[in-house]
Amino acid sequence: MKVLLVHAHPERTSVTHHLVEVAAEVLKAQGHEIIRSDLYGMGWKAVFDGRDFPQRANPNRLSLMEESEYAFANGNQTPDVEAEQRKLVAADAVILLFPLWWYSMPAIMKGWVDRVWAYGLAYGYRGAGNTYRYGEGGFAGKRALLAVCVGGPEKDYSPRGINGPLEQLLFPITHGTLFFPGMQVLPTFAVYGAAAIDAQGMAEAAAAWRGRLERLSDDEPIAFRPQNGGDYPDRHVLADHVAPGQSGLMAHIAGSVVPKDDNNSSAAAFLVPSHFIGDVS
Amino acid sequence: MKVLLVHAHPERTSVTHHLVEVAAEVLKAQGHEIIRSDLYGMGWKAVFDGRDFPQRANPNRLSLMEESEYAFANGNQTPDVEAEQRKLVAADAVILLFPLWWYSMPAIMKGWVDRVWAYGLAYGYRGAGNTYRYGEGGFAGKRALLAVCVGGPEKDYSPRGINGPLEQLLFPITHGTLFFPGMQVLPTFAVYGAAAIDAQGMAEAAAAWRGRLERLSDDEPIAFRPQNGGDYPDRHVLADHVAPGQSGLMAHIAGSVVPKDDNNSSAAAFLVPSHFIGDVS
Repeated sequence: MKVLLVHAHPERTSVTHHLVEVAAEVLKAQGHEIIRSDLYGMGWKAVFDGRDFPQRANPNRLSLMEESEYAFANGNQTPDVEAEQRKLVAADAVILLFPLWWYSMPAIMKGWVDRVWAYGLAYGYRGAGNTYRYGEGGFAGKRALLAVCVGGPEKDYSPRGINGPLEQLLFPITHGTLFFPGMQVLPTFAVYGAAAIDAQGMAEAAAAWRGRLERLSDDEPIAFRPQNGGDYPDRHVLADHVAPGQSGLMAHIAGSVVPKDDNNSSAAAFLVPSHFIGDVS
Repeated sequence: MKVLLVHAHPERTSVTHHLVEVAAEVLKAQGHEIIRSDLYGMGWKAVFDGRDFPQRANPNRLSLMEESEYAFANGNQTPDVEAEQRKLVAADAVILLFPLWWYSMPAIMKGWVDRVWAYGLAYGYRGAGNTYRYGEGGFAGKRALLAVCVGGPEKDYSPRGINGPLEQLLFPITHGTLFFPGMQVLPTFAVYGAAAIDAQGMAEAAAAWRGRLERLSDDEPIAFRPQNGGDYPDRHVLADHVAPGQSGLMAHIAGSVVPKDDNNSSAAAFLVPSHFIGDVS
């Protein structure tokens, strides 16, 4: 299997880089081929702009969607973007490793998504608008996994933790960015307390990470509902009989638990599938 | 009142720029002073890295948090970052205007946050770790507002829409980035269908936007729970008696509606405060 590691941290001795090294070692030992995109090391251009389109469909007005479609269809993309797309297409699994900055990716990785997720490939697949999305599309059949280094403590990200549950904060990435073009997304792997981790904590995190890497082909993906699987008859809104009474992000995960208004604030009220609880860290 | 407009779109005729122009016009007519950060126009450096710290606290290992604290405390930040912080500190209200790319900000704006939100100012306020956050901190007392241009239709972002409700997708920004250092965040203003908007649609959007701008000082902020207001006795997790039975992002908004498992998929089950519904677009 080919595994693409996309990572973003400027410091070689960071927890993020340590996870990258562990991943490369474990996956190679299992006989997998590693492909790497070290965004800081590559000096990745983060800003999506007119320079991405040296040959314009419309020289008068910059529509990024229109230009993306034109450049992807005609082989006019910049070489750095095309190289990343080739890595993605070749990969059977994609792992994004990054520190959580302001509850999201570092800008350099967001810019990797903004620029590489082209119209015709990651959206507008087959030039058909939103016909294929959420479970189908240019990256269908690939597995995806986030490995996130979080400065703060795990309790701040617990079901009732002050920051919000990590997996809900990451929904725009897991659901909106990775599942959108068809990837099967595994539950996030997180190292908490990464800002002040000691050798023992790092060893424990590395051991947990090894376990997740060894199960990369076997772990159950998050049960995001595919657009064309019957739950969204009009391709826009959940059918009334699906997750009745539920709304919000977690309604888009099959089998997620509806909280009950019964003064019970236990983990059972966490709006994620039951297999998911306890599997986040 | 001083209002900072931070905006990010590379095309001058974009819907985003149109909203910026309307904002400048309406706010000036009301006697407010406008401060602008046109991130594409400024050629903003999006990537947060070692170049942000020309004088290092630790030349051997790059800890961004440690260097941010040292640079902010000692006046060693880069001039571009310091200029943005001075604008923020001077402003009574901050409006971020951007197109929604992959359910979040463009990379250039994420990089504005990553670099400008310094330790000692936006986090680690007064050098006291997480003592002051969520409702208190370096940006306390300021109002904040997102104006987001969304390519797709509103129904995709409705309570049971396939993308997830817009305000929940934006929680890492509204709650995690703006409320964190103390800003009072107003409900998001969104223009849907921005990818194919016509003149009439744009006129309607501009009219709605004018209304929101005129009420900038009056509209009720999202009722995010302050860390030190009593709802989080240990500063980490909601007290049992607060929003009992609720978990997830929306538990951090006072008065938000708990969905009932009664086969009722109406808007009433939307996990946001009732005053919020219908006020998003």
